[in-house]
Amino acid sequence: MDIQESEEIKKEFQLERMVLFSDAVFAIIITIMVIEIKLPEDLHHASKEDIRRAIIHLLPKIGAYMMAFFITGMFWSRHLKLFSYLKDYTNSLIALNLAFLFFVSLFPLGISVMLDTLTPRNYDGLYMYFTIVLLGILTQTILTGHIIKHAQNLCIRPDGIESNLEWRAQRIQFIAIPILFIYCILCFLSQVSPQFISYGVIAWAAITGLIRKKLY
Amino acid sequence: MDIQESEEIKKEFQLERMVLFSDAVFAIIITIMVIEIKLPEDLHHASKEDIRRAIIHLLPKIGAYMMAFFITGMFWSRHLKLFSYLKDYTNSLIALNLAFLFFVSLFPLGISVMLDTLTPRNYDGLYMYFTIVLLGILTQTILTGHIIKHAQNLCIRPDGIESNLEWRAQRIQFIAIPILFIYCILCFLSQVSPQFISYGVIAWAAITGLIRKKLY
Amino acid sequence: MDIQESEEIKKEFQLERMVLFSDAVFAIIITIMVIEIKLPEDLHHASKEDIRRAIIHLLPKIGAYMMAFFITGMFWSRHLKLFSYLKDYTNSLIALNLAFLFFVSLFPLGISVMLDTLTPRNYDGLYMYFTIVLLGILTQTILTGHIIKHAQNLCIRPDGIESNLEWRAQRIQFIAIPILFIYCILCFLSQVSPQFISYGVIAWAAITGLIRKKLY
Amino acid sequence: MDIQESEEIKKEFQLERMVLFSDAVFAIIITIMVIEIKLPEDLHHASKEDIRRAIIHLLPKIGAYMMAFFITGMFWSRHLKLFSYLKDYTNSLIALNLAFLFFVSLFPLGISVMLDTLTPRNYDGLYMYFTIVLLGILTQTILTGHIIKHAQNLCIRPDGIESNLEWRAQRIQFIAIPILFIYCILCFLSQVSPQFISYGVIAWAAITGLIRKKLY
Repeated sequence: MDIQESEEIKKEFQLERMVLFSDAVFAIIITIMVIEIKLPEDLHHASKEDIRRAIIHLLPKIGAYMMAFFITGMFWSRHLKLFSYLKDYTNSLIALNLAFLFFVSLFPLGISVMLDTLTPRNYDGLYMYFTIVLLGILTQTILTGHIIKHAQNLCIRPDGIESNLEWRAQRIQFIAIPILFIYCILCFLSQVSPQFISYGVIAWAAITGLIRKKLY
Repeated sequence: MDIQESEEIKKEFQLERMVLFSDAVFAIIITIMVIEIKLPEDLHHASKEDIRRAIIHLLPKIGAYMMAFFITGMFWSRHLKLFSYLKDYTNSLIALNLAFLFFVSLFPLGISVMLDTLTPRNYDGLYMYFTIVLLGILTQTILTGHIIKHAQNLCIRPDGIESNLEWRAQRIQFIAIPILFIYCILCFLSQVSPQFISYGVIAWAAITGLIRKKLY
Repeated sequence: MDIQESEEIKKEFQLERMVLFSDAVFAIIITIMVIEIKLPEDLHHASKEDIRRAIIHLLPKIGAYMMAFFITGMFWSRHLKLFSYLKDYTNSLIALNLAFLFFVSLFPLGISVMLDTLTPRNYDGLYMYFTIVLLGILTQTILTGHIIKHAQNLCIRPDGIESNLEWRAQRIQFIAIPILFIYCILCFLSQVSPQFISYGVIAWAAITGLIRKKLY
Repeated sequence: MDIQESEEIKKEFQLERMVLFSDAVFAIIITIMVIEIKLPEDLHHASKEDIRRAIIHLLPKIGAYMMAFFITGMFWSRHLKLFSYLKDYTNSLIALNLAFLFFVSLFPLGISVMLDTLTPRNYDGLYMYFTIVLLGILTQTILTGHIIKHAQNLCIRPDGIESNLEWRAQRIQFIAIPILFIYCILCFLSQVSPQFISYGVIAWAAITGLIRKKLY
């Protein structure tokens, strides 16, 4: 094995290491919430009805866990697709990937806060959860943008990558997410009814979805 | 290295990534319960008998942990065998694998609920545990079915795969598990003695075991 | 790539998967105890002395964590050496490896029980910890024995493996550990002073250490 | 494949295993703190203001988590760079790597203790945190030193490694960190104002930073 080839294999391995580190973080995040789901203490002396009620009370938590599991799974499979084009890495890529993983790691917290506080009169937990997911999408968009910008150096097939990653649709998020944040902060400050924030989020989801459909 | 070969290696690596992600989830699930096993607080001033009693009370929890460990280990080694035939992957495979991992990740919860609530008068925890394991087997069967159906594209030796995975015996579960669920729901609704549900599970285990033996 | 070579690579990958799964379990076990180390709640309004006392109370826990970390690290590095000879695997190897990982996963529990209950008058936690570590060494010895017995099929250099793994010294454990267990149970049943058990453990450590030194 | 080549691949794989084990430990450490961040129990019946206050109280914890996440990420990316030069390993390397991982695994504990106890009158938590991070930097320096000392056997490009790892700047830590520790212990024993310790840490950071800048 000559040094040239040996170094190329080394570079591949560094990239692999970054990817498998991300996978380990994803795997921990995706299963972390199951630790929080448990019955109240000392049910051995409880009545049959109490036990059944305690088990039924687990169901919304299992539902929230399922939601966190599949949302994280979706981000993971997008990460899988994104990194399948890489053949090299840079320090910026490591930093952006860490920033993306940071927001992903907040997903379970966001869902658990939302579940614990959501009532017809209080949407704070829901807003917190939306914020976390939007920041996740935003950092993923920045990460995708970085890879596309440096495609000639970083990717194995630099020419087809823009259409493969549906970049023209995804880069809309660079404008759409900041606008949505500003809109939400304005709503919050002007003390209008929380419904207006929901309308904003629905409009954001509809518009970005329509653009993706139209472009691809 | 030409592009053709480079892409083939990339595809292998994506598959490897899906497999190692699954392994990380399995590894977390298989060890997660050990966090829950602990002594009550402040035993330093307790009497010798209290401490011995507290340690003895850990034993059923260690037993439940051992059970969860080896059941998860069995599912993992089946997953190892199943994925050893793959040479490619599809989006459906990623989704089915995530669904399978979701039910696997509920195993420790199921065992801990069963242990906390099982009394001669209350089988709710046991039913919950059976449900989780049966859904795990069901999604594993669906995953196996998907791989066999697309064996020509996905597998390295598509011809021998049906007999290698004992598919003729395992696909019985497509009918057997839904029948068992309907039977259990009917038992539950008609308020018959819980023993009838146990008879159903035993009959299911015996019939599927016999069919496997007869066929292979 | 012909089918022969493709299958050989697949076999290598299955083995790699078993090894990396073990590594993930080791990594979780080795870091799991750090979650348990925390200050009591609400120290913000405590006096300076209370806070210093609380921090000093963390030190024995950090010591126990360090102990668990390096004992697990030693077992891991032995596992690394052991599996470096493998080129193939069997179902028994998977099962023995899982059994070994099971006892390894009990190490942090053993150390935490020992720390919480050890007093001059009570050695129960210490015995529990010894039992777990001895069962870990025993299953590791069984695993090593299985690999050496099937070295012709499983290993890359079957001839030198016995001396490389210091097998003639390690197989003593097959006799030494059961004898030690029987001795301890007899001590326990005849209600002699706990010191006698400690003498047994020290004798076991000294004898196996001397044999290893003499043989290699 | 002849035996020579087969053994070389095996050696590569052992190294890969050590690296991926380290990555799994890093991944667990980097996400472990998110488990600790949670709302107080039973907020469903709390008033709107109480819920908002509880969510706002999460923010410093999320900030501490972010800090731990990125500090650990920095150590990880340095580890990635360091190990990218390796082609072989020794038992000392395994031991030094474990010692380094041990101090890394204490980072989340250090940050959480600091957050819980830091007041204008009490810096104990801050000192504990500094101590942990400094010991992490120290073991990383020892690890780097070991790799550079044995570069001819361990590394793929032994000649350029000293300048690549900025060794002339980093080895200053061998003297700087012990001096800092002795200074802090003297400050602590002579009961001077805690500010003096802060001055020491700032001087250490400034001097090592300046030396790095001047040398590279």
